[in-house]
Amino acid sequence: MIYPEEFEKLLEDFKLLPGIGDKSAERFVYAIDSLSLDKVNEFSENLIKYKENIKKCKICGHITNQDECNICSKDSRDKNTICVVEDSKSVFTFEKSGKFNGVYHVLGGLISPIDEVNPEDLNIRSLIDRINDDTKEVIIALNPSVEGEMTSLYIQKLLKEKNVKVSRLSYGIPMGGDIEYLDPLTIMRAIDDRKYLE
Amino acid sequence: MIYPEEFEKLLEDFKLLPGIGDKSAERFVYAIDSLSLDKVNEFSENLIKYKENIKKCKICGHITNQDECNICSKDSRDKNTICVVEDSKSVFTFEKSGKFNGVYHVLGGLISPIDEVNPEDLNIRSLIDRINDDTKEVIIALNPSVEGEMTSLYIQKLLKEKNVKVSRLSYGIPMGGDIEYLDPLTIMRAIDDRKYLE
Repeated sequence: MIYPEEFEKLLEDFKLLPGIGDKSAERFVYAIDSLSLDKVNEFSENLIKYKENIKKCKICGHITNQDECNICSKDSRDKNTICVVEDSKSVFTFEKSGKFNGVYHVLGGLISPIDEVNPEDLNIRSLIDRINDDTKEVIIALNPSVEGEMTSLYIQKLLKEKNVKVSRLSYGIPMGGDIEYLDPLTIMRAIDDRKYLE
Repeated sequence: MIYPEEFEKLLEDFKLLPGIGDKSAERFVYAIDSLSLDKVNEFSENLIKYKENIKKCKICGHITNQDECNICSKDSRDKNTICVVEDSKSVFTFEKSGKFNGVYHVLGGLISPIDEVNPEDLNIRSLIDRINDDTKEVIIALNPSVEGEMTSLYIQKLLKEKNVKVSRLSYGIPMGGDIEYLDPLTIMRAIDDRKYLE
């Protein structure tokens, strides 16, 4: 073993992070060298604090350090418009846009038979249970992938009996995109989802 | 603040790592989610253990968890052939090649007036002090950059009075490289360092 044991172990830990191989992990270990002991202590504690204190919101499944997330617990949010997303990452993305004032429902993944992810592995039952007579709309905001479409269809079917308005995000040309370089599927979707002008 | 506090803090910690911005740091935090608590505890401890136990070898400056690194303390290594490198990273690179049986001297950087790195900030004095009548050769193995050349020249000058054989790595065409795509400087160096065939 050419590395000291402590080096090797930390290297292996960094390699648990997505997209990090030997080279990057090595660079990370060297970076720890140049941090102060206080800073590394803090880093070490923050890892544990994150793992111990972060849980899923009991209403929507979004990550939080409380029983209810900061969105579900906010009075100003419209509790009757529910945006269904794949994961907490999507919630942050939507929140950064600042456009949406409803609440979310985090599925925790997408249905994918090939990866053995079935509907019962996802946070779908609790979505259906949340819907009541006051619910105005469920917006399905999943990726336009095979898994996204499959999950969307599954949810739509379940929601039918609930008699609630269901919508999905529009597909189309991304802002700043160039039509010349768009794939045929996106073009097709952009035509399907075209918006009539007044 | 859209992130929970624990999320935000860990995010900032990951951003201390080289080349890691908001997006990657966010992905890393999510990755921590999918690790077991035991694993995260271990990661957290390994950070501290690394920081607390890893120090510089008192002979060569290479990282180690002992007083002397595993190279300096190995009887089979030729203590009289010293390879001068920029950092411990280089030591590992050389060790991986398995070609070199001497010992190292880790400078801990390169002279760089623009970054205010002066000779006295580097592990140079201890290199000179190490050289004695038994020393057979000092191999300078620094990057062929302006800073590398500057540092190399500085060390060469100091070593002159020591009357020891000094060499540097050869410059030239990298194995697997294609001459067509080499920069003119490398071509020039490859001609300068050409090897006469018997």
